[in-house]
Amino acid sequence: MILGRVVGTVVATQKHDKYEGSKLLLVQPLNLSGDDDGDELVAVDSVGAGAGETVLVVQEGRSTSMVMGTDLAPANAAIVGIVDQVDLHD
Amino acid sequence: MILGRVVGTVVATQKHDKYEGSKLLLVQPLNLSGDDDGDELVAVDSVGAGAGETVLVVQEGRSTSMVMGTDLAPANAAIVGIVDQVDLHD
Amino acid sequence: MILGRVVGTVVATQKHDKYEGSKLLLVQPLNLSGDDDGDELVAVDSVGAGAGETVLVVQEGRSTSMVMGTDLAPANAAIVGIVDQVDLHD
Amino acid sequence: MILGRVVGTVVATQKHDKYEGSKLLLVQPLNLSGDDDGDELVAVDSVGAGAGETVLVVQEGRSTSMVMGTDLAPANAAIVGIVDQVDLHD
Amino acid sequence: MILGRVVGTVVATQKHDKYEGSKLLLVQPLNLSGDDDGDELVAVDSVGAGAGETVLVVQEGRSTSMVMGTDLAPANAAIVGIVDQVDLHD
Repeated sequence: MILGRVVGTVVATQKHDKYEGSKLLLVQPLNLSGDDDGDELVAVDSVGAGAGETVLVVQEGRSTSMVMGTDLAPANAAIVGIVDQVDLHD
Repeated sequence: MILGRVVGTVVATQKHDKYEGSKLLLVQPLNLSGDDDGDELVAVDSVGAGAGETVLVVQEGRSTSMVMGTDLAPANAAIVGIVDQVDLHD
Repeated sequence: MILGRVVGTVVATQKHDKYEGSKLLLVQPLNLSGDDDGDELVAVDSVGAGAGETVLVVQEGRSTSMVMGTDLAPANAAIVGIVDQVDLHD
Repeated sequence: MILGRVVGTVVATQKHDKYEGSKLLLVQPLNLSGDDDGDELVAVDSVGAGAGETVLVVQEGRSTSMVMGTDLAPANAAIVGIVDQVDLHD
Repeated sequence: MILGRVVGTVVATQKHDKYEGSKLLLVQPLNLSGDDDGDELVAVDSVGAGAGETVLVVQEGRSTSMVMGTDLAPANAAIVGIVDQVDLHD
């Protein structure tokens, strides 16, 4: 999984039926210092993540289908946690 | 999933049988600013996406087989939505 | 999937049994302009691709096993089409 | 799999139920020289890895679900070994 | 799959049970010219590959489990062939 920050919302009227009711958020991956690092991705929210929050993102089809409440959805990234704190070891 | 822009069409007469009837589009990944960013990919269209449109792309085999209406096709990228709008948070 | 060009053949006498009878080709990924772009990969040919041809490559285990005619082979890239033409939109 | 170093702990109170009881560690991938190389990732610990240890990390959903003791969890990276030594060939 | 060179051996006493009896090799990916290119990875050997040999590597969980002789192991990279020769087309 990776850490990311919620930076936007994606609106798509015309989309695959399995996406109905799912919220699509734009996520910017972060590095250890909490800075932007890596290419943005679109993830299905499963935990009620809000703008600017640091989140835990899983990038896999089975996982994403699961959080969408189905065996198989054409989706492969999901927000599965809201990060309270990252403790860096010395 | 990622955001991309439809930049071309791929014509392949000689291809695996499972591709019959599928439209193959060339997609350029985009970054937050809507600029080109990342390597182009070829995706099966499932939503009638047209030239220049911003689309939602899933990169996974099970998802792609699903939108092709089969349990298993040798394909791993599909266009699953047409993006109307991306709302960037402040 | 990605577009690539067949640039070589890989010969491996000692290999997993499931590879018997499969042709292994070296593929160079291409960008929109048809120039080399990205790291080379080795793919199982399923369409009789020849030297220098532009091909459609899928990178996934299930897809590759399928084109090798088996449920499960330890392989994850296959050539599934020979590209005649790429029409770039304006 | 890749080699990495445990550099931190991720705390997420609000997360998918399947993560209950799992320890989430922040891992920095390493190169041959043991230097930092590549983007950090978050992995489920399955071997009791501690701060600063060099670990073996698998990045796949099925594997991660397995070490979490379930058929399917929305997670795709796990620490599966603690590395004692890397012997570089001459 | 990719081509790589065996550059080291990884020793991990504390590891997931499914790894018992498996040899873990450190592999450096190679480009067309046979030069180092890309991030090192750790792969389960299934063909008796030795130091310095050029090998064929598959990066997928199902494939790796298969060569480890099990339905499911928490591992996702395996050496599946020893490369005798790479014939580059003109």
